[in-house]
Amino acid sequence: MPSDDRSAERREGLNQQAKAAPERQEAFLAFLALADRLKHTLRAAHTGERRENSAEHAWHVALIATTLAEEVVPRPDLGRVLAMIAVHDVVEIEAGDTFAFDDAGLLTQLERERAAAARIFGLLPPETGARLRESWEEFEAQETPEARFAMGCDRLQGFLQQIECGAPAWKEIGLTKARSLVRMQPAIDLGAPFAPMILALYDRALAEGLLVP
Amino acid sequence: MPSDDRSAERREGLNQQAKAAPERQEAFLAFLALADRLKHTLRAAHTGERRENSAEHAWHVALIATTLAEEVVPRPDLGRVLAMIAVHDVVEIEAGDTFAFDDAGLLTQLERERAAAARIFGLLPPETGARLRESWEEFEAQETPEARFAMGCDRLQGFLQQIECGAPAWKEIGLTKARSLVRMQPAIDLGAPFAPMILALYDRALAEGLLVP
Repeated sequence: MPSDDRSAERREGLNQQAKAAPERQEAFLAFLALADRLKHTLRAAHTGERRENSAEHAWHVALIATTLAEEVVPRPDLGRVLAMIAVHDVVEIEAGDTFAFDDAGLLTQLERERAAAARIFGLLPPETGARLRESWEEFEAQETPEARFAMGCDRLQGFLQQIECGAPAWKEIGLTKARSLVRMQPAIDLGAPFAPMILALYDRALAEGLLVP
Repeated sequence: MPSDDRSAERREGLNQQAKAAPERQEAFLAFLALADRLKHTLRAAHTGERRENSAEHAWHVALIATTLAEEVVPRPDLGRVLAMIAVHDVVEIEAGDTFAFDDAGLLTQLERERAAAARIFGLLPPETGARLRESWEEFEAQETPEARFAMGCDRLQGFLQQIECGAPAWKEIGLTKARSLVRMQPAIDLGAPFAPMILALYDRALAEGLLVP
């Protein structure tokens, strides 16, 4: 009977929904549990007596973005900026952090990170995974004002953190100001508030002998 | 001569600006350098073999918010949510993290955190400090949809992290499901996606003997 068919269809539809919902939750939980590993991806800078990890770095970058958001004109869309910052290093769970002056590592970085992105964001329900991946790609492409503002915050954090910890990783390779500038110039080019803060930090780094003039 | 007066005034104005700008930068840098200490504020949960800190926790909460933002209707303003999450634990730099089941600590938590907020946000230029403090207060007051969504992400992170690490802090105090629910009920009351994920995690916690039934 048609009514029975419809009701059977409805039951089937509800069953599929009920089945889909727990799978969706499990997908979120699997991704969020895996994300914990970013707390064990170590960076070149120190915090206190130990290496800084990429998870706490990402929080520090988010705090910088929140603090400086009203210092730039026009104001960036803070939701997009902070979403980018939350996901910008997630691929390092598999690909590892690549030190800004590790030339060999930089050669393979993009390839390693793309493969990691496919696997990690692939744990999520497809539309959520695509949205987070797009946010990561927006940051990498550096084509929007939000991506550039997020990059400025990211570079400022890495630079400030090195100077605050006495820059052992810079000293180890005898980093020159000129070589450091290759990394920092895109952030300086953003102008205020990044340029004056970074230039003041360069003065401090040189005065403290953390960079080779 | 009036034109000289005006030009002298202009010079004076520019001098004041030039003087104000470095002080403003120094205020930002002092706040952002102090923020590093949140990476050494330890929480009750573990990550790997060590205690989790509040900075990496805050990043994990931001990732949860970014991931789940499109699962709730109406969609929260993600910029406000993620700004709240970035600042929500900054006061712990001075006040420390208070374990959710430390009844003695909870009694003095608000007072300790308010004093810390005044000192820490007080490092910033006044309008920036006021904005960050308002964001922290919005989270604490739990009166807006954004604050409640951020709270749901915060509670889910703490709960998931304990279960993932085998919940040594719960076992130590013999935490019961009923006592845990006092903490988790506000997040469960938000409905999907929080309620089904948290209820699924309760099933897992009980099956693994992490909570007393």
